[in-house]
Parts: sequence; structure tokens; C-alpha cells
Amino acid sequence: MGKCLIFCAADFDGLAEEIQKDDYILAADGGLVHVEGLGLTPHGILGDFDSLGYVPQGSAVFPVEKDDTDAMLAVRKGLEKGYKEFLLYGSLDGPRLDHTVANFQTLQYLCDHGAYGYLIGKDTVVTVVKNGTLRFPATAEGIVSVFCMGCAARGVTLEGLQYPLVGGTLTAGFPLGVSNHFIGQEAVISVTEGSLLVLFDRKNGLPVRG
Amino acid sequence: MGKCLIFCAADFDGLAEEIQKDDYILAADGGLVHVEGLGLTPHGILGDFDSLGYVPQGSAVFPVEKDDTDAMLAVRKGLEKGYKEFLLYGSLDGPRLDHTVANFQTLQYLCDHGAYGYLIGKDTVVTVVKNGTLRFPATAEGIVSVFCMGCAARGVTLEGLQYPLVGGTLTAGFPLGVSNHFIGQEAVISVTEGSLLVLFDRKNGLPVRG
Repeated sequence: MGKCLIFCAADFDGLAEEIQKDDYILAADGGLVHVEGLGLTPHGILGDFDSLGYVPQGSAVFPVEKDDTDAMLAVRKGLEKGYKEFLLYGSLDGPRLDHTVANFQTLQYLCDHGAYGYLIGKDTVVTVVKNGTLRFPATAEGIVSVFCMGCAARGVTLEGLQYPLVGGTLTAGFPLGVSNHFIGQEAVISVTEGSLLVLFDRKNGLPVRG
Repeated sequence: MGKCLIFCAADFDGLAEEIQKDDYILAADGGLVHVEGLGLTPHGILGDFDSLGYVPQGSAVFPVEKDDTDAMLAVRKGLEKGYKEFLLYGSLDGPRLDHTVANFQTLQYLCDHGAYGYLIGKDTVVTVVKNGTLRFPATAEGIVSVFCMGCAARGVTLEGLQYPLVGGTLTAGFPLGVSNHFIGQEAVISVTEGSLLVLFDRKNGLPVRG
């Protein structure tokens, strides 16, 4: 099964990943501009269209006064279709910091519903890993920051990084895992109980999950 | 007792609040540039000075390889001195999204240590409220977003906002409280168990806490 690609309104400097035939493409409100710019045909267009400013033909229109962000609407649609891996392009680097925070929590929503996702910005990728592992190849470079997401994250292990950790606990009340560094080894980030918010350079591509 | 004003490296388009005689001024690494630009004399200068690029006279130098961010070093110093209210200027809008997330958790650290703080950026202010209340005057305008910080936030009440809530629960797994709006009434945001991350427009000034 392919991936669910969700295009949001913020900039992301083009696609780095190849789109496969069985990928499912959704435009979230203003993200339709990116989809059209890339010459893609979306399988769905969702939103309240307050940022796009018009309602495109064949789109699923939701009221402005709703509990879901446009990104959440698209995530729900992808989960309904059974997708497990979500790439949210243009979900960082927007003018609204609160939308970025909402998208962090959307990553947690995916993990709480048996899936996972990546927020893809211009230079940065953000993901959440819950009771699991991320593996980065030895070619990974730059900074990787690891934060507790939600309740305390226990059994946190960081291997192959400048500042290793074995079975540690991270909480939302102290940013111990900020500004770690790849060091030319395979890097493993894992948590046995709880979730981690992980930020890294987009040029490293996406990690292997286990 | 005055406030602890911490100047970080990012831009914040000048001071909106008046500095009082009994305020305690700390420069965190590159934030010294702002302190000097404002013609202020800091009571302390802390950091590893990797971003400033030189070590200013009379500064407290910490190794680059440390568990604390420069903002955390300054927060610890202010807490040692007994300050309860912290304003962190230039702690948003920087090039590093992970530093912004680290600063969110620094706000939680303050609340977990009997204090509270505000991250002050160019247009946005971010705070954390733990088992408490924020009151905004009827003159407050624009968007206010409320997120769960850490474990589930219970007994969340939002009054005088476009989307009210009474005794609700917020979790890090669903951004229910994003993009709420002030509506020309006194607005009250409160939580009885847990913490909320609250983002609002800087032009509204700072809320009353209780």
C-alpha cells in the first residue's frame, strides 16, 4: 500500500520523495496551489477554503467553525482509506506558529491511531515515534532534536549520536534532548513507553521505523 | 519583586513592556546583542557563546556540550535569585524550530518550579499555565490557541472566546484548541489539572494570572 501525501499551504521547496502510483494525494485548503503547481491530480481536496479563497470543483467543503484543522481533516480521510504512512508537505514554516504546534499534535494523533507521519518543511522534517524506533543511516548529518511528546517518555535510548542516552526518561518540562548531533554512525532513537517528537534536517531523508 | 528579563538571540522587534528598576536582566549568548542595542546593562551574561562568537567580559561561560540550552541556563539563574515572572525576549522566530520547542518546555520547567514565563517574539507571545487561570481583557483581539502541554490537561475552561469549553480535557494527541478567537469580552482560560500551552498576539499584552 502506498503513502498518503497531504499538501498544506506553507512552502516546502518542492518534493524530495518520489510519488508512487499507489500513493494517495490530498490537498488541504491552500495546499491545492502546491498540488497544481506540481502537476498532480489530487484524490481529494478538503478544507474550509478560507485560505484558498474559493471552493474548487469536486472538493469536500467543511465549515470554518469546526474542531479539525484542514490538515486533521485530510489525516482522517487518509486513515479512513487505510493508509499508515503520511507525508504532510507544507505543514511547517507557515506564518502561524500555532498551526505548527497543531501539526505536531496531528502526528501524535496518527501514532495513536496505528499510523505515523512526517511534517515536511523547507529544511526540516518533524515526526513522532510512539513505543518504537527510528533508524537513521550513517550518512545522516547535522542536528537531531528529541523531545517528550505528551506524558513522560520512558525507556528512551539514543545510540550513534553525539549525546547518547540509555533507557532515560524525557518529560515535557525539560528539553534534555535538544540539539543532539549525527556523528557518521547509524543512529537509533527509540522509546519503550510514550512518544517522542523528533526534528531533523530534511536533507537526511526519512528514517527506517521499527 | 521585579521580573526576570532574559534576552535570547532571535529577533523580537523591540520592547513593549517597561523595564522597572527591580527587574533582573540576563543575556543568553547571542541575546547580548539585543541588550546592548537597547542600551541596557545586564546583571548577568550566560551561555556557551557559540552563537555570539566571542566571550564577553564578566560573563558566565558554560561548555557547548551541556544539558541546558542557553535560555535554560538563564532561567535557572533567575530562579536561584527568587524571581517568579520571566519574560524571554527573542525566544521565538529564530531559524531553529527545535529551539522554539525547547523554549516551550522551558516554560513548563518554570511552572514546575513555582514560576511562570512568556516567550516573546515579533508578533506572538507563548506561555504555559499549570493548574491556573489566564485572564485577557475585553480589548484583546485576534486568535488565541490553547494546547495540552505534557499529560492530559483536565478541567479546561475557555470563557469569553468564540469556541467556549467547560471542564473539558485536552491531550497532546488532538489539537482541539487551535485557532480560537477573542470576541470583545473578558476571556478566561483555566485548567484544574495539568498544563496548557497558550499562543496569542503580542499586541494584546500579557494576561492577568490567577
